[in-house]
Amino acid sequence: MRKINIGLLGLGQIGTGLYEILTSKKAFFERKLGVSFEIVRIAEKFPNRKRKVHPPKGIMTRDALSVVRDPSVDIVVELIGGTTAARAVIKEALKEGKHVVTANKALLAEYGDEIFELAHAMRRWVCFEASVGGGIPCIKALREGLAANNIESIYAIINGTTNYILTQMTETGMGFSEALAGAQAKGYAEADPTLDIQGIDAAHKLAILVRFAFSGRVRFKDIYSEGIAQISSDDIAFAKEFGYVIKLLAIAKKTADGVEARVQPTLLPKSHILANVNQSFNAILLRGDETGDVMLYGRGAGAHPTASAIVADLVDIAKGSMEGPVDDASVIRALGSRVTVKSITSILSRYYLRFYVIDKPSVLAAITKILGAHQVSISDVIQRERSAGKVVPLILLTHEAPEKNVRAAIRVIDRLAFVKGKSQVIRMEET
Amino acid sequence: MRKINIGLLGLGQIGTGLYEILTSKKAFFERKLGVSFEIVRIAEKFPNRKRKVHPPKGIMTRDALSVVRDPSVDIVVELIGGTTAARAVIKEALKEGKHVVTANKALLAEYGDEIFELAHAMRRWVCFEASVGGGIPCIKALREGLAANNIESIYAIINGTTNYILTQMTETGMGFSEALAGAQAKGYAEADPTLDIQGIDAAHKLAILVRFAFSGRVRFKDIYSEGIAQISSDDIAFAKEFGYVIKLLAIAKKTADGVEARVQPTLLPKSHILANVNQSFNAILLRGDETGDVMLYGRGAGAHPTASAIVADLVDIAKGSMEGPVDDASVIRALGSRVTVKSITSILSRYYLRFYVIDKPSVLAAITKILGAHQVSISDVIQRERSAGKVVPLILLTHEAPEKNVRAAIRVIDRLAFVKGKSQVIRMEET
Repeated sequence: MRKINIGLLGLGQIGTGLYEILTSKKAFFERKLGVSFEIVRIAEKFPNRKRKVHPPKGIMTRDALSVVRDPSVDIVVELIGGTTAARAVIKEALKEGKHVVTANKALLAEYGDEIFELAHAMRRWVCFEASVGGGIPCIKALREGLAANNIESIYAIINGTTNYILTQMTETGMGFSEALAGAQAKGYAEADPTLDIQGIDAAHKLAILVRFAFSGRVRFKDIYSEGIAQISSDDIAFAKEFGYVIKLLAIAKKTADGVEARVQPTLLPKSHILANVNQSFNAILLRGDETGDVMLYGRGAGAHPTASAIVADLVDIAKGSMEGPVDDASVIRALGSRVTVKSITSILSRYYLRFYVIDKPSVLAAITKILGAHQVSISDVIQRERSAGKVVPLILLTHEAPEKNVRAAIRVIDRLAFVKGKSQVIRMEET
Repeated sequence: MRKINIGLLGLGQIGTGLYEILTSKKAFFERKLGVSFEIVRIAEKFPNRKRKVHPPKGIMTRDALSVVRDPSVDIVVELIGGTTAARAVIKEALKEGKHVVTANKALLAEYGDEIFELAHAMRRWVCFEASVGGGIPCIKALREGLAANNIESIYAIINGTTNYILTQMTETGMGFSEALAGAQAKGYAEADPTLDIQGIDAAHKLAILVRFAFSGRVRFKDIYSEGIAQISSDDIAFAKEFGYVIKLLAIAKKTADGVEARVQPTLLPKSHILANVNQSFNAILLRGDETGDVMLYGRGAGAHPTASAIVADLVDIAKGSMEGPVDDASVIRALGSRVTVKSITSILSRYYLRFYVIDKPSVLAAITKILGAHQVSISDVIQRERSAGKVVPLILLTHEAPEKNVRAAIRVIDRLAFVKGKSQVIRMEET
């Protein structure tokens, strides 16, 4: 029986879930996997906070460094979060020869190069299944299950908060603010929801997926992100009329002249498999050159789903070589040449455009003329209420067009006297 | 660089796909995974058949045993299929100390005990990702990604042929025979489609999933299976009116008094994530006690998707210990005590019941009275056309009821003078 001593950094929600699983299922893991896990040290800034679990006082400390330096610790599980203390302790842990398991997407997105380089130099594991998609084994699928594939694209719903909000808006017709408040009341959104709402959290996760899917260093700032705060209930209703739903997608794809990687609200055909991923569920659609589309779906957050992913990493390390990775070619490769991410203005896409205009006969002609002058052609139109002289919505779907042309056309259109308020532009994906 | 010599048994469609991948991506695997794969021997009953690949004549033989006994072969890939020759050569390969990778679901379903026992005794790998769900890494998810979980249930669409046929019937309104002919014309169904249509293929795959999900020996004959040949376009249309779609599901779940495991046409609510898995796609929904629902979706067949799964197994063996499994606790456990599968007559379910009856006032009352006498209560009714004296459909949905009561009630109902033809009974699942 392999015995593994764990040093746990952070006894918050996920740490508590992990503690519960490892203690309540100790015999289960011994019998099922032949591995005996023991949490031998816990670092926690607020040791006396009320919580569901009660580790022995003797293993608790406020000093994370003392845990990573403890010779009895085999694997350090980092659940501190953030990019300051976590970064320092993970590096120290690796230098001390410990393996590391982390759920810290921000850290790996922003400092992945230095973390993975150090792990490689020290020949230690850094495992991070929990950092993307919570309980969904998507990192394992990407690195192992699809090992035979060149990954061609990723389309992912990897932020449960925004998916919950958009689902509520779609199902009830409520606006963004009301849906956000509801999500906060139900615990699906934090008091400060900025990272989720603006797409930053999804972008962090996408940076990690891109590194391992496309095998190279990724600069987090190269990943464009757009949030959902500007999506109105009107947009969702109009999208529905065209047969689409609006989802916050993390998208990455290989193109002839580089990789596209961005987080954006997206119109998806309602028959698309991702269009049916609702509430706080996540899903990651990976397109491999051998397998075609493979999608993984499940709970992207929550203490127990996330802790389940951490345990899977612990098991992998325990069943692999505790003396270091037998072969970390996938990490080496993910430290290879930089993945060149195209700027957002150089992409091609289809677009949903929504204008509020004074209803008069010449308006549609004027707008389509400007779009046409920028080589943006229209595929579909909704011009709903006819009420001369009043402000009415005008919705256009475009054929594929260069982003920079669309932006230029919108700048011109927004200056027209009969166009009221700021125009809405949402990208579309068909496949 | 780890060099792995492969003996390939069977150069049919999947074998050809594997040959293509391993030869065309040799450098890719060396760079990406640090593993050099070489197919050093190929056994094929029809070596001169025209095919897309042209292995060197010198490595081809008609004699599979000579390949498994070749000392230069490290891993045997068995793609012969069937349960006779394949069974003999896999056992011989294991006795010779070779690791085995196979896509043979029938063999593992029917002779899994002896194969896994021998592998365990010889301390050799038997890998079988390709046997369930083609290119979908569902075995890896089940055994590794969800290692922290007790699996509570499996709901899976694991036969592409039947899913394609049901999708065509649903989308176009065509009948079963026409849809089957179309599937055969497009290559989604074989000339003899019996194994697919009757649910046997799905039952083979379910037997494998049950063994590893519920950790024990499984008798294939304990798994009940019902096919789709008796599903009519009427059934699909009526299901739709109630908000359901009909899918051929492989279902396994733990209950207080044993495991349920069966393959059956099933009414699923159209909002269910599996209800949106269409065409020839497969999906496996695993419910873990920690993760909740996790679903994996993708192409369940095809040369390259299936070969992709075989390569993933090859990589796992290559990156693990070629001297034998470091820890095969999951195999040992899957050889544990027998999984007690409940008989189909002892289950509880909701049911869709369709009768053709002479339209007269007393009919609904008579039928519901018989159902009531058997403790089967009705939740919904469609009694469509009113045309006194003519034969009309009558559709009832039941609340949860014991299967044996439903069967007893149907036997009585089928003998009523105003009931024409055989009644239709389709089980329903809500979650």
